[in-house]
Order: sequence, then C-alpha cells, then structure tokens
Amino acid sequence: MTNLLTVHLDTNYLGEEMSYTYEREINYYETDKMGIVHHSNYIRFLEEARCRWLRELGISMEILEEKGYTIPTLEVNCRYKTHVTSGDVILIKPIVTEYNGVRMKVSYDVIEKNTGNVVIKAWTKHCFTNTSLKPINMKKNNIEIHNIFDKLLNEALPV
Amino acid sequence: MTNLLTVHLDTNYLGEEMSYTYEREINYYETDKMGIVHHSNYIRFLEEARCRWLRELGISMEILEEKGYTIPTLEVNCRYKTHVTSGDVILIKPIVTEYNGVRMKVSYDVIEKNTGNVVIKAWTKHCFTNTSLKPINMKKNNIEIHNIFDKLLNEALPV
Amino acid sequence: MTNLLTVHLDTNYLGEEMSYTYEREINYYETDKMGIVHHSNYIRFLEEARCRWLRELGISMEILEEKGYTIPTLEVNCRYKTHVTSGDVILIKPIVTEYNGVRMKVSYDVIEKNTGNVVIKAWTKHCFTNTSLKPINMKKNNIEIHNIFDKLLNEALPV
Amino acid sequence: MTNLLTVHLDTNYLGEEMSYTYEREINYYETDKMGIVHHSNYIRFLEEARCRWLRELGISMEILEEKGYTIPTLEVNCRYKTHVTSGDVILIKPIVTEYNGVRMKVSYDVIEKNTGNVVIKAWTKHCFTNTSLKPINMKKNNIEIHNIFDKLLNEALPV
Repeated sequence: MTNLLTVHLDTNYLGEEMSYTYEREINYYETDKMGIVHHSNYIRFLEEARCRWLRELGISMEILEEKGYTIPTLEVNCRYKTHVTSGDVILIKPIVTEYNGVRMKVSYDVIEKNTGNVVIKAWTKHCFTNTSLKPINMKKNNIEIHNIFDKLLNEALPV
Repeated sequence: MTNLLTVHLDTNYLGEEMSYTYEREINYYETDKMGIVHHSNYIRFLEEARCRWLRELGISMEILEEKGYTIPTLEVNCRYKTHVTSGDVILIKPIVTEYNGVRMKVSYDVIEKNTGNVVIKAWTKHCFTNTSLKPINMKKNNIEIHNIFDKLLNEALPV
Repeated sequence: MTNLLTVHLDTNYLGEEMSYTYEREINYYETDKMGIVHHSNYIRFLEEARCRWLRELGISMEILEEKGYTIPTLEVNCRYKTHVTSGDVILIKPIVTEYNGVRMKVSYDVIEKNTGNVVIKAWTKHCFTNTSLKPINMKKNNIEIHNIFDKLLNEALPV
Repeated sequence: MTNLLTVHLDTNYLGEEMSYTYEREINYYETDKMGIVHHSNYIRFLEEARCRWLRELGISMEILEEKGYTIPTLEVNCRYKTHVTSGDVILIKPIVTEYNGVRMKVSYDVIEKNTGNVVIKAWTKHCFTNTSLKPINMKKNNIEIHNIFDKLLNEALPV
C-alpha cells in the first residue's frame, strides 16, 4: 500500500484534470447498533464514487451498458481507520493505480470532510466484460474507452 | 386491518396445507444506531417470506421468471409494533387476503419467536407481469398458477 | 390520498419557506435483477429526505438525539407508480400532513427529475420519544421544536 | 492465499469440533441489475457466518456485548470467483487463521452448495474493544474467551 499512497500524493502535482472527489453524507440507515457506519456500506460508497467519476469522464455505467460492457468487481480490499456516523460527510477520491486493457485497479482515499481524518484506505480490482459477462480486452474492443483509462493511469503515476 | 386479523385467526382451523411460517434471525448489519432493526429492512423480510413461501408452493420466483412472469410490488404498508434486534428470531406468516387473477394482496403476521410479541402488521399488493413488465391476467395466462393463488385465497377466507 | 395531493398542490401558493426538495441519484447497488430500484430502498430514500429536511429546519436527527429525542417510524405506506434505475435522479418533497404534538404524518411526492413522472406516492407516521424510547408529547417537552412542526402543518394546509 | 487453502484442507483431519458451516440462501433483494448478487452483500454474508459461528461457540455478539466487548472489523478482503443469484444457496466456512489475543484474522471458504463452485475467497481482520471502542488484549481481559479463539487457531493449523 506504500506505493499507492505515494501515487496519490504525487498526483497533487498533476493539476486539476484527473482529480475527482465525491462528497457523500452518511445516512441514518447506514449505521448499525455500534452507532457507526456498518463496514459493508463502504464497499457501496466506493461504487458510488467510481460510477459518478466514470460519468464525469463521459463513460457512465449506463453508457457502458448500452455499448455492451460491464465492469465487474474482481476483488475489494478495505482497511477501516476511523469511524463516521449519520450526518458526517466523507470525501472519496478514486484514482486508477493499475490498468492494462484487461484489468484495472482503482484506489481510494476516503477522508472525513470536517476533520480530514482518514476513514478507510481501499482498493478495488476490475475486469471488463461483454453482455454475456465474458472478459474482454478493452484496448482491442474500444480504443476510446481504453484511452480514457490509460490516461487516468498515466496521470496517477508519480512523475 | 381488523378483518385481516380475523382471517388469520380463522385459518388456524383450516389445517396444515396453507400454513407457512418463515423463521428468520435478525443480523447485526440490519440494526441501526437506535440499536434495533432499521424499519426499511422489514420490507425485505416480507419479500424473503413471500419468495420462500412461493417456492414451497412450487412456484418460486426463479420458476416464474423462467416462465416469463414477475410479481412486482404495487404497494406496501407496514405498522411497527415492537422492536427486535440482532440475534432475535422472528416468525413471518404470509396469507393471500385478496386475489382476482390480476391483483393480489398478501398480509403478514410477524411475531417475535421467543416472546410471541407482534413485531409488525403488514401487507403488500402485487400484480403479475410478463418479461416486458406489462401487466397480465394470470387466470387467462396460466391457469395452474392461477389455481394455486385462488386456493390460497379460499383457504384464507373465514369459514 | 386525494387529500394529500390537494394539500401538495395548494401549498404551491404558500411561498418558498416550507418547500423542501431532496434531489437523489439512484445507485447501481440499489437496483435488483428486475433492472430497477428494489422497492425496499424507497423507504430509505424517504428517510434521507426527511432527515435532510429536518436539518434544513435546524433540527437534524443528530441535534434531536443530543437533546434526548428520537422520531421512530410507526407506519409506512408506499405506492409504486413508475420505475427508476441506476443513474436516474428523483426529487422527493416531504410535507407534514398531520401533527398534534404526539404523532406526525409526513407525506411525500416523489417524481423522476427528467420526466416529471410520479415514481411513488408515500407517507410515514411517527411519534416522538425520549432516550428510553418512551413516547412523549413534544408540545409539553419542547415548545420550540413543537412550533416548527406545527408551522409546517399549517403551511401544508389548503388555504 | 495458498496457505489458507492448505489450512482449510488439513483441518478436515481434525474432527468435527472446529468445523462450522453456515448455509445461506440468496435473497431477491440482494441481486443487482447485472442479475447477480451485488458484491457488497458478501461482506454481510461473512458477518452472518461469523456471528452465528461465535454463537455456536457460546460467545454470541449479544453475550460479548453484555460482557462489554465488541469485535470491530479492521480490514476485509474479498476475491470474487463465480456468481450466484437469488434462490442459490451458499455454504460459508469460517476459520481462525491468525490470533494473538489482540488481533484475529478469520478466513472463509464460500462455495455454492449445488455446484461446489468457489464463489468468493475472503478474509477479515478484527480487534477486540471495550464498550468505549478502545482496543483491549483479550488474553488479559478474559482468559475464557481467549482460550476459545486460541483453540480455534490451533485447530486450524496444519498438523
């Protein structure tokens, strides 16, 4: 995870174009009897951030599905650092940290807006499939979409 | 709702064949920061009971979908009576209280297993659709499925 | 429900102060295999709208809990009219349609932003409790909070 | 993850006492518009398995909470292998693969009952806290609970 952190910090030098931050308020129904957000919900928040980010990039899940693509999740990893609860606001910054046309890794900084505390450290791995959920190589199937992800990866790389 | 209650009590005289009870333990992630089950989850528990009941009757949602039918929910009504929390076990008894081939109303007794306390009183209304989500008349489309629901209604009626 | 609709239409004449609209995008994880929002999720969207509305009014759930109050849900009723799916945006307008210090009914118009289609018609009933979940009379317990709800009810009444 | 698999296979020689399998049917509301279980739900299924397993061992979450302990989740990792959908039944086998009184790692085999297909490979890491959510050393705080987890770890080790 050290590398990911480095990547993230370095990207601060790269200017506005790659930076996407998703602001999200915690709902009451997302807490559990411990009084804090149930840990499973963060996996959903990551998806929210990822989907809205893709839409900002012009390739929303809905557009991708129209073109016959889906982006299933192959793996998730989430380390819980501090707790938030209903009414709190979190900021999620997704960046592409691995991409080769076939697989993609997205890493996320998640902080509490008011305090700046790190809430979780997380990453998700994905592949690309057609409508029959068969894996495809995006570079061979759709060079425009490929170029978007490739650019995101390059922007995320340390200079 | 008085009628529904009467229906339920009367059906105790009608023998085993119509009686279905779904036993369900409450999960930790279904509680909220009040320390009790979040009220939205009961709508899901009702669906669980309904789906497993239909499967017992030989018409699981999966079989219905294979035949091209779905049973969308048109309306839900849920009155919350007492609270349960993680580790508690509830018993859900669904009965058909209205059915005419086009619309169906299912009513539910939900009690806590250990105490017998009424947890919620609820009903849901449904129609039947084909794969394009167009409403259909089950009596005209599939007399076998129609007969099952019709029998359930008759069994639920007070003698 | 005709009365509720009338109330809502009439309130358009009453000026901006009571009008609150919550804009909410549907998430991917809120859909089910029918391809549309699972019906249980609307109960959660209503809570989101209600909580953010209360916060706008200066009495967020968090502030209420600090003062020792909660607002449990006693009953929900939801009629499903048209479907929405991930990426769609809904607008939720809550109004107080009954209030007497002890009980409160909140009604909701929920429309799809792009089409103006009615998505659901819903209402929820609530009481007020102290930290031991014992019902209280808000008029006797906290006249300031009482006055807010009372004003909301009066604003919602047809002229 | 190779080691974990080895651990799991070896434990088959150790007799019945440590083997716990949680059987779980997938609900309709747990699917998404891809027609399969939404990936976030598996985190919840793991918790279900973990909680019921602890109860079998005499230390349910409710008993632990009464004694003033909670077991927060520090990290989750989940690799998605094959898809299941509503009506499918999965079997979850949790085993303790790391434990030292302060931290615990639980690993899970999750297979589809009918096919034997591996659905996910997952692990979760936990600590132990008191009611103020301060980390504690279970060995120093409660030797009986410590011994249960210690025994589970030893049973899971390859002979």
